[in-house]
Amino acid sequence: MAIRFELVKKCPSTGARAGILHTPHGSFPTPLFMPVGTQASVKAVSSEELRELGADIILSNTYHLYLRPGHELIARAGGLHRFMNWERGILTDSGGYQVFSLGTLRKITEDGVAFRSHVDGSKHFLTPEKAIEIQTALGADIIMAFDECIPYPAEYEYVRASTERTTRWAQRCLKAKTRSDQGLFGIVQGGMYKELRTQSVRDLISLDFPGYAIGGLSVGEPTTLMYEILDHTVPQLPETKPRYLMGVGTPDALVEGVKSGIDMFDCVFPTRVARNGTAMTLSGRLVVKNAEYANDFRPIDPNCGCPVCRNYSRAYIRHLLKSGEILGLRLTTLHNLYFLFEFMRRMRRAIIEDRFLAFRDEFLQRQGEQ
Amino acid sequence: MAIRFELVKKCPSTGARAGILHTPHGSFPTPLFMPVGTQASVKAVSSEELRELGADIILSNTYHLYLRPGHELIARAGGLHRFMNWERGILTDSGGYQVFSLGTLRKITEDGVAFRSHVDGSKHFLTPEKAIEIQTALGADIIMAFDECIPYPAEYEYVRASTERTTRWAQRCLKAKTRSDQGLFGIVQGGMYKELRTQSVRDLISLDFPGYAIGGLSVGEPTTLMYEILDHTVPQLPETKPRYLMGVGTPDALVEGVKSGIDMFDCVFPTRVARNGTAMTLSGRLVVKNAEYANDFRPIDPNCGCPVCRNYSRAYIRHLLKSGEILGLRLTTLHNLYFLFEFMRRMRRAIIEDRFLAFRDEFLQRQGEQ
Repeated sequence: MAIRFELVKKCPSTGARAGILHTPHGSFPTPLFMPVGTQASVKAVSSEELRELGADIILSNTYHLYLRPGHELIARAGGLHRFMNWERGILTDSGGYQVFSLGTLRKITEDGVAFRSHVDGSKHFLTPEKAIEIQTALGADIIMAFDECIPYPAEYEYVRASTERTTRWAQRCLKAKTRSDQGLFGIVQGGMYKELRTQSVRDLISLDFPGYAIGGLSVGEPTTLMYEILDHTVPQLPETKPRYLMGVGTPDALVEGVKSGIDMFDCVFPTRVARNGTAMTLSGRLVVKNAEYANDFRPIDPNCGCPVCRNYSRAYIRHLLKSGEILGLRLTTLHNLYFLFEFMRRMRRAIIEDRFLAFRDEFLQRQGEQ
Repeated sequence: MAIRFELVKKCPSTGARAGILHTPHGSFPTPLFMPVGTQASVKAVSSEELRELGADIILSNTYHLYLRPGHELIARAGGLHRFMNWERGILTDSGGYQVFSLGTLRKITEDGVAFRSHVDGSKHFLTPEKAIEIQTALGADIIMAFDECIPYPAEYEYVRASTERTTRWAQRCLKAKTRSDQGLFGIVQGGMYKELRTQSVRDLISLDFPGYAIGGLSVGEPTTLMYEILDHTVPQLPETKPRYLMGVGTPDALVEGVKSGIDMFDCVFPTRVARNGTAMTLSGRLVVKNAEYANDFRPIDPNCGCPVCRNYSRAYIRHLLKSGEILGLRLTTLHNLYFLFEFMRRMRRAIIEDRFLAFRDEFLQRQGEQ
């Protein structure tokens, strides 16, 4: 089996757990955060830097790579790992999320989704089989079933029908999958309806995926509702399989996700806000490009051990950001990624040392002090 | 003396020479090429990368840093070396070149130049004393006298008057200089008039600078004329002092400059063309973003040992450039800088091994094969 999850430790009072995710490109401690390399590049940073920061798995987008440069080209290059010079883990999404985000540019049928490219307007038709074909060519360690990410709010009847179709698509994906060195994850949908989430979990478990993702959360619903759905859904998933919460990457949501038993996360948040000049710290966000930091010669976070905080001041980074220098957003990106990797490492240590709830309390207190 | 030049070897048949430039931040083999960090950052690359590539001295711009973030802020940060985390050599220009490039936005008098900021339109007055004051605050190892870079073509009478004023300004700069850990270079002007070049050299030598720059070349004149002026001017400079040809950085001009006895060069060329998707190689320029490289999985230059050519293909770099990914122009920048540093190292070795002319012949032949 391409993907195997090893449970190392369970928190006695919450769903939190520490584990190891075994993949064809390495074994990675969980819970883990995956930075997003939309177009075969985590924006502004290199593979070498990702390695140094401690990234284990990165996510890349099937939709984007299919349109440009094309999955066949990447296959000819020897696969995505080789194309982008990244020898650790890669997870590709199914393209569903991007295609469904196109709004009026797409049309859903039982067979799949017709859409127009955002790059050149060309027409395409994405099916479960096509999504697997593309991901087979890309060659990621973990590939995702083709699903509909249901918007919020949505009517019960729509969610029911969509979720059932997602399950049928998941079956088709399983059938289409060919490579033994790739693990295909199923994606739990069901919107904000607990019974539909339960049904989705049951249906997918019966298909026996090597891992399960929770999709359709962090799509605009109140945070408390997201946590409620998580707490309802995650415990129903098999303990022996990795669980992946899609599109979540703020520190508070990472803590709550881990608390309910999630092992893997991805999000563009840390890299996107970095490029807008915002740095993440344990005591909240620091907008480096604000005027108040013009003469501040301290690092972004004096307690941070990242290469940026060891060598560069807020004043310098602000100057670069204000002057439009690429190095500015690169430095904030590096810091934010390091911050999140370190955050996950600390959370894992806390789980292993039986003090996850204390870690969470301390974190919530510091966030409150902002 | 802050700056000392050690002559290691002279070419028996040309003006070419190998040496060592001793500065307060290290001793660097010459001939050398200085990448340009206009706004306290060599665009798209970090100080760590510059070190790895083998950069020894970088150039930064007084005009830009004076306007943003301000020289006083950089002084408070502990100087430019510390501000940008660069512990090797730095040379700052005088601001003259940028100010004179402003065209109608500036006005020259004997005292100095009035101009408006390109950033916010604010009024400023730059004098020789002010240029030194700013450079003193920035703290570079080598600082430059305030001069007028004469455009091409220009009338004899204008060039004569301007060059004489540049000499008077050079005297004022010497008087204004205070730091013993900075070396002030004089700048030879004289336009395309040999007798004015000769006069400028004589006047500046009498002021005894620790190094001399050739300014006012590569300003639009025919290349052959530039080489003619160089061959006329350089031999008149004292052999014991470093010679710096300003604003030149194409391989052919580097070879010809070295041939006439130049030790130092700077230019935005390699980094600027890199950001436009053009890579430099010994057999000429390679426009990586061209369609012909879409399926080309070879490195930019199969014979290049740079970190980019060791790990990334033309196809990948082209994909990044076409997709607007920052990493694309960063990789081309890294390659071009490595190429030029390596080019200078080879040229130096050729001088030391008494085969500079053979090196030059071989280079010209390869360029001709394009």
